[in-house]
Amino acid sequence: MTCVEGSCFSNVNVFRKDPILCFLFVISGAFKFRGACNAIFSLNKDQADKGVVTHSSGNHAAALALAADLRDIPAYVVIPNNAPNCKIQNVIRYSGQITYSQPTLQSRETTTTKIMQETGAVLIHPYNDVRIISGQGTIALELLEQAPEIDTIIVPISGGGLISGVALAAKSINPSIRILAAEPCGANDAALSKAAGEIVKLPETNTIADGLRASLGSLTWPVVRDLVDAVITVEDQEIIEATKLCYEVLKVVVEPSGAIGLAAVLSDSFLNNPAWKDSNHVGIVLSGGNLDLGVLWDSICGL
Amino acid sequence: MTCVEGSCFSNVNVFRKDPILCFLFVISGAFKFRGACNAIFSLNKDQADKGVVTHSSGNHAAALALAADLRDIPAYVVIPNNAPNCKIQNVIRYSGQITYSQPTLQSRETTTTKIMQETGAVLIHPYNDVRIISGQGTIALELLEQAPEIDTIIVPISGGGLISGVALAAKSINPSIRILAAEPCGANDAALSKAAGEIVKLPETNTIADGLRASLGSLTWPVVRDLVDAVITVEDQEIIEATKLCYEVLKVVVEPSGAIGLAAVLSDSFLNNPAWKDSNHVGIVLSGGNLDLGVLWDSICGL
Repeated sequence: MTCVEGSCFSNVNVFRKDPILCFLFVISGAFKFRGACNAIFSLNKDQADKGVVTHSSGNHAAALALAADLRDIPAYVVIPNNAPNCKIQNVIRYSGQITYSQPTLQSRETTTTKIMQETGAVLIHPYNDVRIISGQGTIALELLEQAPEIDTIIVPISGGGLISGVALAAKSINPSIRILAAEPCGANDAALSKAAGEIVKLPETNTIADGLRASLGSLTWPVVRDLVDAVITVEDQEIIEATKLCYEVLKVVVEPSGAIGLAAVLSDSFLNNPAWKDSNHVGIVLSGGNLDLGVLWDSICGL
Repeated sequence: MTCVEGSCFSNVNVFRKDPILCFLFVISGAFKFRGACNAIFSLNKDQADKGVVTHSSGNHAAALALAADLRDIPAYVVIPNNAPNCKIQNVIRYSGQITYSQPTLQSRETTTTKIMQETGAVLIHPYNDVRIISGQGTIALELLEQAPEIDTIIVPISGGGLISGVALAAKSINPSIRILAAEPCGANDAALSKAAGEIVKLPETNTIADGLRASLGSLTWPVVRDLVDAVITVEDQEIIEATKLCYEVLKVVVEPSGAIGLAAVLSDSFLNNPAWKDSNHVGIVLSGGNLDLGVLWDSICGL
């Protein structure tokens, strides 16, 4: 097995016999840094000087803060006041300027609008933005550069920014490459949308993969509809098992949302699907790695 | 910052501003696989057919089991009956044949001798063996191939197999390269040995870095004495902080013993030592990654 950039290329016989894995890690702990960099360095000077704003509570916020810091412009981040501490700490680590909102979409949007009015900052959406989609697509360029024999790529799906970028980039290089989405059963809006032929939004989601609860956007849905070959849904228990494998065998820190591609590859739905028998070189995108590890440190310190 | 093979090359300003890290991971989760492979594939057929035996409770045992499995020969592993579960599971994962002993050196040695007499298996010592030392040294060859500008390498020290191999390989390429050992204050026998000019053994050790409690051997001590420039000792709290950084920022799973090189680089002893002001390109060997994560999974499953 060869692993590239938080992505993992496998012949399905994962974890045995092939002695060397090769990774490229992205700072900020998630692929989101790719899109955030592309978006921020695409701004003209007048736009950039006023800074950027987002109301993501997750890895996009930290990535945007870091990318903004690299261009030396402010990043305003609206975070619901119930966000996990490790994600807040990541934003602080990368010099993001946090404003807390109530944990409702309305409060997040109102707070964001107020910041935009006060500062003139540009809103950078976490996935429904062509600059973000293009940036995330660079993961496929590097993956296929390092492992051109890949015939199938499995990508986590949430709002669809990552998989849209990957599908566009990968199919422009190799139109016959198979792009599969991995989605939690408890947030299966992409599977339902593909089946219905239109965007389906769920009234609520229930999954351990907290980064995969968003719905598809107006820009990502057409790409998912036309270029993603299928959606594999997996149970939370499968996601947890895959996350464990990442830690215990691959030795990479991955959050459940980031390990779902491995869960999909190891699932019966993938392994026993006759349509995919010819998937011999499978690339798995494993990202991000922002998990709250407090309990682990508490246990270590208590040894 | 560039990271190679569980080794990490840094300009001391760790963790910021350099967007890409590059790792090569070794299967079995520790550098021990290098030495184990070298030892096992150095055996002639008659020796190999009878298998190998060790009484390591740690990563060497798992690495030896995996290397033996690759050559399709048996690996007998004597493990004290109080060894951490994750290390036992690693040996089982790689098809090692476990015999439990009492947790005393005498019981371990008696059990090992009995297996050798019964099977004719070859004893492979975890560090006091030239084949093991040479194998571990390949980490320095690859590190300097990928980052030839490195002027200082910091390596964890326990029995001295890893640092002996690294020092021999690195100084044969660049005689002026600085080799520093990183050692826990609670198991500082290497520092005491260097000061005394002879092997000092501690009556007991007390450190969270459970992989770093061994004493130097007859083959490793002369190399440590002559080729290791100094030993940096660090407190357990510094080791824990460095381990956290590995998880939270580098996104690699490292056990405290494996993160100690980073703790040493971040310590005042290193940063404020005028003798090392010219250490501008520091390679850190981060290995291994076998930590008992049960408490983490329990907390995730309870979410």
